[in-house]
Amino acid sequence: MSIFDYFRSAKKDTASIAKERLQIIVAHERNQRNKPDYLPKLQQELLEVIRKYVDVDQDQVEVQLDNNGNCSVLELNITLPERA
Amino acid sequence: MSIFDYFRSAKKDTASIAKERLQIIVAHERNQRNKPDYLPKLQQELLEVIRKYVDVDQDQVEVQLDNNGNCSVLELNITLPERA
Repeated sequence: MSIFDYFRSAKKDTASIAKERLQIIVAHERNQRNKPDYLPKLQQELLEVIRKYVDVDQDQVEVQLDNNGNCSVLELNITLPERA
Repeated sequence: MSIFDYFRSAKKDTASIAKERLQIIVAHERNQRNKPDYLPKLQQELLEVIRKYVDVDQDQVEVQLDNNGNCSVLELNITLPERA
């Protein structure tokens, strides 16, 4: 394979490869309207568990916490670092 | 309170209170088709973290693991025990 072929194939890969992502959703549906206050605390612990298996860059973690009636939702969107 | 009142109120509670549920979804979107094999292992660790905050009965945990192209999804559906 010539150096030109190498770049051609490398370029193709870059174009076709989307970023690697991890999404974690925790939804708690309660029968009472007192909000579960453990979801914010849970967030950090979940990340610690995930970190045992994949590299997570703290800057690449997007956290969303919603309370909608008696449903509380914790959403973590993580963009994983690209490997060399 | 007579036994009749007891049953009446108990019935009312059962009717108006929906079950408390917890849902956890972990989705890993990869740029390659090699499946992440850590999701099954992750499952038990996630439950251990959750158990610090809420009572989880192992019989009430439904696990689903899907691989769809380069997206792997772990889904845990938990029915939480009703409190007295």
